[in-house]
Amino acid sequence: MRTALCDRLGIDLPIFGFTPSEHVAAAISRAGGLGVLGCVRFNDAAELDAVLSWMDENTDGKPYGVDIVMPAKVPAEGSQTDLTKLIPDGHRSFVDKVLRDLSVPPLPDDTDERAGVLGWLHSVARSHVEVALNHRISLVANALGSPPPDVITRAHEAGVPVAALAGKGSHAVRHVDNGVDVVVAQGHEAGGHTGEIASMVLVPEIVDAVGDRAPVLAAGGIGSGRQMAAALALGASGAWTGSIWLTTQEYLRTMPDSAAMQDALVSATSADTVRTRIYTGKPARLLKTRWTEAWAAPDAPDPLPMPLQNLLVSHAHNRIHAAGDPAVVSMPVGQIVGRMNRVRPVADVIADLVEDYEEALSRLDKTR
Amino acid sequence: MRTALCDRLGIDLPIFGFTPSEHVAAAISRAGGLGVLGCVRFNDAAELDAVLSWMDENTDGKPYGVDIVMPAKVPAEGSQTDLTKLIPDGHRSFVDKVLRDLSVPPLPDDTDERAGVLGWLHSVARSHVEVALNHRISLVANALGSPPPDVITRAHEAGVPVAALAGKGSHAVRHVDNGVDVVVAQGHEAGGHTGEIASMVLVPEIVDAVGDRAPVLAAGGIGSGRQMAAALALGASGAWTGSIWLTTQEYLRTMPDSAAMQDALVSATSADTVRTRIYTGKPARLLKTRWTEAWAAPDAPDPLPMPLQNLLVSHAHNRIHAAGDPAVVSMPVGQIVGRMNRVRPVADVIADLVEDYEEALSRLDKTR
Repeated sequence: MRTALCDRLGIDLPIFGFTPSEHVAAAISRAGGLGVLGCVRFNDAAELDAVLSWMDENTDGKPYGVDIVMPAKVPAEGSQTDLTKLIPDGHRSFVDKVLRDLSVPPLPDDTDERAGVLGWLHSVARSHVEVALNHRISLVANALGSPPPDVITRAHEAGVPVAALAGKGSHAVRHVDNGVDVVVAQGHEAGGHTGEIASMVLVPEIVDAVGDRAPVLAAGGIGSGRQMAAALALGASGAWTGSIWLTTQEYLRTMPDSAAMQDALVSATSADTVRTRIYTGKPARLLKTRWTEAWAAPDAPDPLPMPLQNLLVSHAHNRIHAAGDPAVVSMPVGQIVGRMNRVRPVADVIADLVEDYEEALSRLDKTR
Repeated sequence: MRTALCDRLGIDLPIFGFTPSEHVAAAISRAGGLGVLGCVRFNDAAELDAVLSWMDENTDGKPYGVDIVMPAKVPAEGSQTDLTKLIPDGHRSFVDKVLRDLSVPPLPDDTDERAGVLGWLHSVARSHVEVALNHRISLVANALGSPPPDVITRAHEAGVPVAALAGKGSHAVRHVDNGVDVVVAQGHEAGGHTGEIASMVLVPEIVDAVGDRAPVLAAGGIGSGRQMAAALALGASGAWTGSIWLTTQEYLRTMPDSAAMQDALVSATSADTVRTRIYTGKPARLLKTRWTEAWAAPDAPDPLPMPLQNLLVSHAHNRIHAAGDPAVVSMPVGQIVGRMNRVRPVADVIADLVEDYEEALSRLDKTR
């Protein structure tokens, strides 16, 4: 399971694992893939700096990357207070009503609440990049298309390639024109922000669109070696994975209060996701729960545009997370959730991917 | 590109080509695949009988199959007149208004209009099966899940295996429990009736769910050898294809007035489809045109349940087809339409699939 991109990045396996957990990211890198740490949870640059220092120490010298979130078309700046004023009262009262209906208790008074949205702002994402470039990183990925030109330039000056997600061939070409080095073809079945075109069609479309200008990673629906083989058969140089790391043991080490979320994921089928704008304002695939169902009801308001929707629901997310009810989880996850049926160590997930990949190739050999 | 299913059915390539055109179906079979003739267009059993006699003569002795449409949960019987009474006036006037708005002219007085819906009724579909079993067919496929038990029994008595489409693992298991021999895993990206789970996730899910009890064909998003290789890597025993045959030269021989439809498909991208209930009452993926956009407008009524919706729009479909305007086509097609960029002979499509498949396998070899 080796492609030219492995040599370029110094990794053994073309498995790129996006995760908000440094314990998961480090374990992916140690197992031969490229762990990519999501930075959006770090509103405080010093906190990210400390976590990346931990990554430097705990990856056995293996490469790792970081993922930032810089949407191209939202207010680049603005304090949380300014933006909060733009949220209609009707939306606030709807969220309050749903939380009451779903029996989600208020947070205890002493809770140190996560603000939620700041990582989406350009000022914060830029500080993430600056902090990350002081560490031993091998990739800067942007979850929402091309980062701004100065960010690409900064990364390149530091010798770090830049990856960007694309849901259409035309977007992929634009990213490469902007200087992006690796395109992540994010299929409809993927968790989080995702478009309408499914991986089977999207991956070869993007591979053909960018040609030799950039390697393409397949994202969406990949959680087994058969799916890795399919991704590489479609022309991808590797797989960008995210969902499958949510049900690893290491995830709990970073986020010890995530047992209810893992319970919900482990029992879900591939039909138990929904693509909706309620998480961020842009279409994103989430686990289907009583929370997403409430937003699909006839009395629910339309979600607000990014970044207001995430501001609107960030307090609700904190309450939902603290409540620990698997039926009311709010969690981005792809259709591959149907295959995530137990909580396992990262190394086991990767070992299975490799073994199943070899079996898939042996099966293909027999078709000759 | 050979699997055990090829030996079982006596075909050279595990390419199953569904098409309403006997010229296309025969060409697919002659080229080594299995042409599967859609029967829903034949309201007259004698007409189907004549066409299947033509198939017997024009397939060089190679196997072919037929596809029927027997929904499990619609009125099994009832004349067109009875059903027509169930259509609300508001729906009729909406269709009339849209046709006016889109400048679709009335049919000439001398047009012999296709009735449209009858092929969906069990009585008609049963007559299709009876007619087909008097011909040299190698497969009876049902586009909407398990056929009724007596139909499965009749086919098995004649030594003909039965295939059924499934959009979930649980549906596939039910089909096999019902006696279905081959499961078609119809991914979200497919044209026509389709579910929410995309091929990358659905195919291995169904392969695992049915195990050794039935071979699985991957449907949805397959139009190149890379996609064939991906399908087989995912564990499928072959590919069920449909969309890619719509832009073949042979299609025009059966449906000579389809040039506008082909023009529309050839210029469409993978983003130019929409999954909607407006064609039959069940969710089906269609080419996105001014017709589908009209039904997505705020003033559009909700589509009717099957089979009423197809009855409602069948006259409109005839008018749209006769109008020959590529911007107002009503046509089921999958996301693979973005790769259908010219009108070609069937044999060329298949030759490219085979060549590209070999290239994909060679590429995979290099990852070892």
